[in-house]
Amino acid sequence: MKQTAKFITFEGIEGCGKTTQAKLLIDALHQRSVSAILTREPGGTRIGDQIRKILLHSENTDMTPMAELLLYEASRAQHVRELILPNLQNGINVLCDRYGDASIAYQGAGRNIAPDIVKEANALATGGLQPDLTLLIDVTPEQGLARARARNLTFNFAVEEGRFEEEDIRFHRAVREGYLALAQSEPARFCLIDGSGDVEEVQRRIQAVVLPLFENAEQKGS
Amino acid sequence: MKQTAKFITFEGIEGCGKTTQAKLLIDALHQRSVSAILTREPGGTRIGDQIRKILLHSENTDMTPMAELLLYEASRAQHVRELILPNLQNGINVLCDRYGDASIAYQGAGRNIAPDIVKEANALATGGLQPDLTLLIDVTPEQGLARARARNLTFNFAVEEGRFEEEDIRFHRAVREGYLALAQSEPARFCLIDGSGDVEEVQRRIQAVVLPLFENAEQKGS
Repeated sequence: MKQTAKFITFEGIEGCGKTTQAKLLIDALHQRSVSAILTREPGGTRIGDQIRKILLHSENTDMTPMAELLLYEASRAQHVRELILPNLQNGINVLCDRYGDASIAYQGAGRNIAPDIVKEANALATGGLQPDLTLLIDVTPEQGLARARARNLTFNFAVEEGRFEEEDIRFHRAVREGYLALAQSEPARFCLIDGSGDVEEVQRRIQAVVLPLFENAEQKGS
Repeated sequence: MKQTAKFITFEGIEGCGKTTQAKLLIDALHQRSVSAILTREPGGTRIGDQIRKILLHSENTDMTPMAELLLYEASRAQHVRELILPNLQNGINVLCDRYGDASIAYQGAGRNIAPDIVKEANALATGGLQPDLTLLIDVTPEQGLARARARNLTFNFAVEEGRFEEEDIRFHRAVREGYLALAQSEPARFCLIDGSGDVEEVQRRIQAVVLPLFENAEQKGS
């Protein structure tokens, strides 16, 4: 059982660009023959995708913060055991669009659940599995929401996946502050990426951090 | 804010008769002008019913035990805050078909998650709200499964709500043992009801325990 595979997570507020950046990064890794998968939360598994529908549907405004937290954790528990751990144990690197830090930022800082409670729920769901590296792509809520709303209009996501974009700007500010506080408290794991500028520019910043981790691993099959 | 309302839960394995018995009991309470509602888990709320569909669908056999536990807890968190607590705080008694003990019996004893982990998850979901009285309706797994399967055939429940009835008999034995151990560890809260015999006979046993609790409250509106 190889255990050298890396677990890298992407975090940031709505519209920070993490989904686009994660896709570009996995392409760059595959071009270098690094074996890696890209997955996301909530979702990433058949069960998780069913949970995702409940979490993101814009009609579900009556969800309590604790129910929201526990739904994310249920999706995460399935994701860790069905997909993330088995891949890591097989030596395949895992890139994940959101993970436990998102719950601390969104349900903790955003919804005012005590961070210790969120961390306790994360520990139940993940069994303690932490990322090796977390890329926090930082933009202002104004930048992020403008991008997220344009995307939702283009892809008609607003009804089925728009619940968080409809939150007040103060919510997104609190989430961003939550993320920045996390990055400060765990500098060895977090890497803060400036998310402003064009897509290629941000990707260059990410690759400058990530590619050196795989320089000795480029002989592996992808 | 009246706080004298009672929170009474019904527990037991599949086919023990608790759903039928709970309906008969609430009718008996209403006939005596005791204000009370009957609800159930998983479900009981709009959000909880969406979670219920994921939990009970017979196709979802790939669900991990921890994801299952956290889905029950998400439904429970919504239920406590949206329905159970507001009713109790308004002086309305609440009867509930399954609650936190079900997670200890099913996900703990049945799925082998450590009981302390299940209790920790219950505490997150409920904020510590415990029933005043828990009626454990005890039948053997053989009796219970025969009833549950007959019901599923009659009502065509097997696909959409049949996931637990399809478990091995050993699973249901472990769940029953889990329930009996809980009843023994908390004798002040639990009341063990013999679930054998006909419906009216079991209901008489239940009423003998429950009705005395409301003898001084019969003047309340229902």
